[in-house]
Amino acid sequence: MDDATLSRFADLVVGFGANVQDDQIVAINCEPGKEYVVRALAESAYRRGARFVDVSWFDPWVKRARIAYAREDTLSYVPPWYGRRVLELGEQRAARIALSGPVAPGLLNDLDPVRAGRDRLPAVKEGIQVVNDRTTNWTIAPCPTPAWAQMVFPDLAPDAALTRLEEQLLHVLRLDEDDPIAAWRERADALVGAASRLGERRFDALHYEGPGTDLTIGLLPSSWQAARFDTVDGIEHMPNLPTEEVFTTPDPARTEGTVTATKPLVLVDGTVVRDLVVRFEGGRAVDVGASEGGETLATITRTDDGASRLGEVALVDREGRIGNLGTIFYDTLLDENAASHIALGQGFPFVLDEAHRDRANRSEIHIDFMIGSNELTVTGITPAGDRVPVLAGGRWQI
Amino acid sequence: MDDATLSRFADLVVGFGANVQDDQIVAINCEPGKEYVVRALAESAYRRGARFVDVSWFDPWVKRARIAYAREDTLSYVPPWYGRRVLELGEQRAARIALSGPVAPGLLNDLDPVRAGRDRLPAVKEGIQVVNDRTTNWTIAPCPTPAWAQMVFPDLAPDAALTRLEEQLLHVLRLDEDDPIAAWRERADALVGAASRLGERRFDALHYEGPGTDLTIGLLPSSWQAARFDTVDGIEHMPNLPTEEVFTTPDPARTEGTVTATKPLVLVDGTVVRDLVVRFEGGRAVDVGASEGGETLATITRTDDGASRLGEVALVDREGRIGNLGTIFYDTLLDENAASHIALGQGFPFVLDEAHRDRANRSEIHIDFMIGSNELTVTGITPAGDRVPVLAGGRWQI
Repeated sequence: MDDATLSRFADLVVGFGANVQDDQIVAINCEPGKEYVVRALAESAYRRGARFVDVSWFDPWVKRARIAYAREDTLSYVPPWYGRRVLELGEQRAARIALSGPVAPGLLNDLDPVRAGRDRLPAVKEGIQVVNDRTTNWTIAPCPTPAWAQMVFPDLAPDAALTRLEEQLLHVLRLDEDDPIAAWRERADALVGAASRLGERRFDALHYEGPGTDLTIGLLPSSWQAARFDTVDGIEHMPNLPTEEVFTTPDPARTEGTVTATKPLVLVDGTVVRDLVVRFEGGRAVDVGASEGGETLATITRTDDGASRLGEVALVDREGRIGNLGTIFYDTLLDENAASHIALGQGFPFVLDEAHRDRANRSEIHIDFMIGSNELTVTGITPAGDRVPVLAGGRWQI
Repeated sequence: MDDATLSRFADLVVGFGANVQDDQIVAINCEPGKEYVVRALAESAYRRGARFVDVSWFDPWVKRARIAYAREDTLSYVPPWYGRRVLELGEQRAARIALSGPVAPGLLNDLDPVRAGRDRLPAVKEGIQVVNDRTTNWTIAPCPTPAWAQMVFPDLAPDAALTRLEEQLLHVLRLDEDDPIAAWRERADALVGAASRLGERRFDALHYEGPGTDLTIGLLPSSWQAARFDTVDGIEHMPNLPTEEVFTTPDPARTEGTVTATKPLVLVDGTVVRDLVVRFEGGRAVDVGASEGGETLATITRTDDGASRLGEVALVDREGRIGNLGTIFYDTLLDENAASHIALGQGFPFVLDEAHRDRANRSEIHIDFMIGSNELTVTGITPAGDRVPVLAGGRWQI
């Protein structure tokens, strides 16, 4: 990526995605290997008046040493200052930026998955609270790295793979437009429109049908959200760049049936879960199977009661830029925006009608997995039992 | 460095330098570019039962963006969680490891030195408190990097320079001995012996004479220290690896005369101060001159009242391994152990006799600079005014 492109990328993430304000602290979460983007973000943030850029680096190789050698009873320990920093970012009304994209895919694959599942860092439970408090304007954007490029394009030479990944990321970030921010405003308006129409229907449940999938998810009285968030102080921001989804929080007690993931899932520690099939009974994931990585995921679903229940349902149409590429990115930020998805774990209480906010699922985890495809049909079920087509062939039916 | 050497290095730093105990938190401070050593330290620490390895990375390129672009009034801001983490490491009785060695020499040289002097990160004032509280067992050790090697050996090709730097570091770390820990115990015993003899003399002042130097430093009733520290809980550790010095805290009100540094000084931000000459009156550095980097250092000496007064005097004999190499490492850890030195800023109250602890210099800074050479003569002055030779030609005279 040349310097001019890197600057445009950084300015989009800082100025539009996180929408950094004058005198804000800007927290950046990243891994070694992403220095070149981090430094461009820092420059962009300071140029627009940031008070301080606080970069938190998490090294997956240090985590690997922990999983391999640390005493069993210490594996879930998190120093208290990890969570408190996150809570303070909320109190200080900071901006937050995270860079997605694996730097070391498969790094933990040869280690004991039960031990690996006990250490959920760099995720901390306080991160979910700060999102729900809406005290920080934040965004997650992808950062190309050579290891990631090789994983996505294994048949290309390293340089060609990186160039290809960069091209595709710049495309889905709409940085190949003359005015990327205008393009994003237009797409965000369309997504907010779809979310609004979905919310008006007040569906009681969604029924998913497709290859390996027959799943019904109960809904609560809620709104549907898209793309754009506001903080409690009214700072507009784009939590994901790119984003193509509309979503809500379901009823954690009413999921029934079987769902088959349509894309691999890369856990935060680099574990890849392939061919995932989950069976739900009474809202709980009672059966988690996969051809690879299933045990690690199953361990995570036993973290707490809410870890085996759904916290999110999201619908993605085929008009976004990601799904059309046909690329599997092995990165939730991109893959979840290529396809409809659901998430185990913590829900979003703020999307529920006031009287029902206590009913959102609660958990220390939040793990999205992709279930959408052009073969998937989603049908809304009204409180009266009527069936209303919602999504078919990747196109909105409402 | 091959894997076996890297492991021996890590085990020396973790097991002997910091002397990490079972179930301790281990904090590692480092910069991008030192990953390979950090990961070896983490493995060594977890193998010996560490509860958690908390790596804090500080990126000097992000600091460069700040100095270049941040608003003037924000440059000395430090997020509150930076200092609190350090205090909590003390409360938790953690081990602490820092890796010295510049990763980006001269990175800030083209920026405004006054702005650069306002941002003292990664140093935080709470770091000094934790040292004085003696609640953590800690060590600083050098980490070879290509940029550092090129700076030290500019006439060698990059690979050869790195190999040479590694060889010299392994030598001064006594890792070329069959039993490096036994070699370190012997040297530490010798240094502790010299410190003990110096302490018994109860000198009132030291008089330094050499090329460009005629300096008298008043002393307080104190002990001299060397090499080995104990925490309040009795954990023995080696704060510096390598170490060749004996030191005490002087009277901050009684330094008179002029001193010429005998080696360049590399500030924590990478600024190199060359040909430093400092003139003291009534204990204060009233004149700070240098051919390069002087303004940045002068700004730092105005941080607070104690920043222009001495907090440390240290004597180094010529029997250590560093001085004999004739190498300028541009790294305080190594260069200060090659030569006698003094430090501006915070002193060490714990070396003073109980009744005089309040008299140690206080400051947010602590900056060592090297004044020793084989041409330097150090004379002790007794309370009765007698002159006693202490160090001449690099050899102890007492």
